[in-house]
Amino acid sequence: MSESPLLSELIDALRCMPGIGKKSAQRITYHLLQRNRDGARKLSSALTVAMDKIGHCERCRTFSEEKICALCQSNKRDRSLLCIVESPADVYIVEEAGFRGTYFVLMGHLSPLDGIGPEDLGLDRLERLLDEGEIEEVILATSTTVEGEATAHFIGEMVHKRNLNVSRIAHGVPMGGELEFVDSSTLSHAIAGRREF
Amino acid sequence: MSESPLLSELIDALRCMPGIGKKSAQRITYHLLQRNRDGARKLSSALTVAMDKIGHCERCRTFSEEKICALCQSNKRDRSLLCIVESPADVYIVEEAGFRGTYFVLMGHLSPLDGIGPEDLGLDRLERLLDEGEIEEVILATSTTVEGEATAHFIGEMVHKRNLNVSRIAHGVPMGGELEFVDSSTLSHAIAGRREF
Repeated sequence: MSESPLLSELIDALRCMPGIGKKSAQRITYHLLQRNRDGARKLSSALTVAMDKIGHCERCRTFSEEKICALCQSNKRDRSLLCIVESPADVYIVEEAGFRGTYFVLMGHLSPLDGIGPEDLGLDRLERLLDEGEIEEVILATSTTVEGEATAHFIGEMVHKRNLNVSRIAHGVPMGGELEFVDSSTLSHAIAGRREF
Repeated sequence: MSESPLLSELIDALRCMPGIGKKSAQRITYHLLQRNRDGARKLSSALTVAMDKIGHCERCRTFSEEKICALCQSNKRDRSLLCIVESPADVYIVEEAGFRGTYFVLMGHLSPLDGIGPEDLGLDRLERLLDEGEIEEVILATSTTVEGEATAHFIGEMVHKRNLNVSRIAHGVPMGGELEFVDSSTLSHAIAGRREF
């Protein structure tokens, strides 16, 4: 037996979410139908509204329902510091770490093999932002993957040309981490980046 | 920083799904916004349609958008055999195992502590179904939990009173299972239920 057409449609539609396979989609469908139809209706409308209304901030490119996001509009931020991250989720994480400057969100990283070049990351807009003269230091907080490092390097060159300060977040042993579980590449970065104690 | 209001709303709404916590909800939100807005819109409409249109089959109580589900309407099923399961998901699993009778879906199990009694499981409807005279054997395929066993026992009594055949699915070692990983309760059921070879 196959499920009824509407059931199958919902199960298929749920699979647009990352990490949700056929089994999870079935489980979610049955759960929502049996126990939480109101929640499902709320989810449906939240999805439509979010997809229609949320665009990108014109200054920092993060997700925002307004032209300029709340963070870029705030006058409590240090506008001389610009932190470059790969995704809106990273903004959230850096915020939680207590950073109080502003951001620029690349929405990805350089990846020539996938056809993702500087213009796809909005680097032209970043150049204009740097040329406005408010920014004094750029902090490169892209991932520590090969692509993240390459992207950091590329943007670093761009910033250097303008005689602005540029820094990269420190690589090293995670807090609470035990040395025996740290890989050698991380450890060599941690030793090279040692600080006076 | 908190996320923008629409983003937070979507993240909260996603948590109505079982197994989706705050982190997964965030990840799903960012993924849909960044890569699959069409998928999210489709999901939104599939959710609304399913929640509004899918009710319960009047004969077997499974989810169905029609008054009588396709399976109960089919004339290819053996109507003398009735399989009792706890949820519509179980119907799907029993179908995959090749069963070709009809079903009755309890939508739960007896659980006096949670206030779930016989009427909540539609046992009055089951009694009417048994009295119609088409059914010759009832197969109890509720879970092998304490509640599932109690529910099976309760329904078993109901069927016995009507002088119909009643059976319980076999408990034993799962196919492909190694004896050393099977718990003793399962193994004692497997030995008690041994068949000539």
